[in-house]
Amino acid sequence: MCISTEFLAEAVYLSVDPYMRAYSSKLKPGDTFLGSQVAKIIESKNPKFPVGQHIVGYFGWRTHTISDGGTTTFGNAPMIVPNIGTLPLSLALGVLGMTGNTAYFGFLEICTPRVGETVVISTAAGAVGSHVGQIAKIKGCKVIGVTGSDEKGKWLVNELGFDHFINYKTDDLDKALSECAPEGVDCYFDNVGGDISSIIMRHMNNFGRISVCGAASTYNEKEAKASTIQRSMISFNLKMEGFLVQRWNDRWNEGIQQNLKWIKQGKLKYRETVTEGFENMFEAFTDMLQGGNVGKVIVKV
Amino acid sequence: MCISTEFLAEAVYLSVDPYMRAYSSKLKPGDTFLGSQVAKIIESKNPKFPVGQHIVGYFGWRTHTISDGGTTTFGNAPMIVPNIGTLPLSLALGVLGMTGNTAYFGFLEICTPRVGETVVISTAAGAVGSHVGQIAKIKGCKVIGVTGSDEKGKWLVNELGFDHFINYKTDDLDKALSECAPEGVDCYFDNVGGDISSIIMRHMNNFGRISVCGAASTYNEKEAKASTIQRSMISFNLKMEGFLVQRWNDRWNEGIQQNLKWIKQGKLKYRETVTEGFENMFEAFTDMLQGGNVGKVIVKV
Repeated sequence: MCISTEFLAEAVYLSVDPYMRAYSSKLKPGDTFLGSQVAKIIESKNPKFPVGQHIVGYFGWRTHTISDGGTTTFGNAPMIVPNIGTLPLSLALGVLGMTGNTAYFGFLEICTPRVGETVVISTAAGAVGSHVGQIAKIKGCKVIGVTGSDEKGKWLVNELGFDHFINYKTDDLDKALSECAPEGVDCYFDNVGGDISSIIMRHMNNFGRISVCGAASTYNEKEAKASTIQRSMISFNLKMEGFLVQRWNDRWNEGIQQNLKWIKQGKLKYRETVTEGFENMFEAFTDMLQGGNVGKVIVKV
Repeated sequence: MCISTEFLAEAVYLSVDPYMRAYSSKLKPGDTFLGSQVAKIIESKNPKFPVGQHIVGYFGWRTHTISDGGTTTFGNAPMIVPNIGTLPLSLALGVLGMTGNTAYFGFLEICTPRVGETVVISTAAGAVGSHVGQIAKIKGCKVIGVTGSDEKGKWLVNELGFDHFINYKTDDLDKALSECAPEGVDCYFDNVGGDISSIIMRHMNNFGRISVCGAASTYNEKEAKASTIQRSMISFNLKMEGFLVQRWNDRWNEGIQQNLKWIKQGKLKYRETVTEGFENMFEAFTDMLQGGNVGKVIVKV
């Protein structure tokens, strides 16, 4: 006897993330675009996924999905949205989802920040960057955010408690770092790659740590070139590690619960840039890639 | 009462190393060029450094040096040459000195190789590269050396036991790696940086490790550009660490003794490219930077 485990899920919120740009080059015309969503189960033959339940599924850019509860082409198996009380369900894609765990594990496990150290974050006003900076403050670090507008920078400093911001479009990054961090940089959380990263790495202290989360500056080119970083790595005994957040799948709930706790304690703030309408996903995506967002980008169906 | 600790040392062998090129840009005209040497003490007021004793000193390119036994501008305090029996004294600059410890600690501590893994080494026929490859074989790895001539490559494979060599000047590195290492690369010991490293990193396996020892390809330019490596680091969860060998100063003798043991067991071979005459140091140095050497470059006074 064959028991069906299928259910039908209807998208409620869709996630829009920089990493999609990196993976999109692997897609062929006609393929479903990748990504995760918060969806509501509207039909079900699977007792683990009952009708009315909200889930996070890696279903791609789709409004309706038939799933058997297994892993998809794009990622993990669907997960029940954790109990987040009266907080918005969309947070399960952001600060209480993959984005939040990317910040939590990617920063703490790879940068291993210590009290009093100086932390630099690129794409600091994005969903992950703004979250990492706040964790760094919770851990007693000095935090410098590199971002693309003064408006975003002021949000980081005035609302989130960053110590400094640098506008890479209008400031001389090298000079600004010498001024903001004359003591040198101990941890660098990298979302961009390219020359911004090469310059930041020249300001690092001996035995500094670099967490490579994204390389947004290089996603549009097959062979992006930048100043090499190997000499900085040798001179300062630097350690650099890239990561995909799925490596911490077995600790997933730890990250969610800690971030939830920090939100409830008022230590972790978040912002969402929400676009209404499934048909506007592409615009939300390209706008984000050009830096039009603050915090997590969400499309509400 | 002031007791003099001075002694006079006369150079016997001088070391010629790629790292000197990196540091030379910090020197001003008239400065002594940096480097280490095996020297014989010919006068002494210091009982720890008696007349007739051979030492390794970081005295720079000099034939005669007055030292007080302390650290110098260029490195560690002078060390007594370890007891190496009937082996040549020049080895204290190479396989039984800084070069050997660079290979020993830089490879084992940062690449943490495991039996059956695949290791790629750039500048594989140099003093450090040829040594690293032999340690990798001792540890049960498959070893691929990237070098600049078939002659050197044949030495690596036929004499030192490397599994493959790739001539980066005549082979298509990307294609050759796919052929030599279809299983992917687990450890990369990097002496060159630049595009060679960017290409090798695209062939790495998940959780691969990269030890950044040198960046010879970039020493002649202030702002050398190459294809960025951050996307490879993310996609494959790579860990990369740069180092200066002095970080293992407190374990210095461990490296010397292990390398000496491997030499006596016939597991570790070495070659020296020796130039006679102090006045020929500059030529020996520039020849090495152009790949004219095999193994360790030494100038005999």
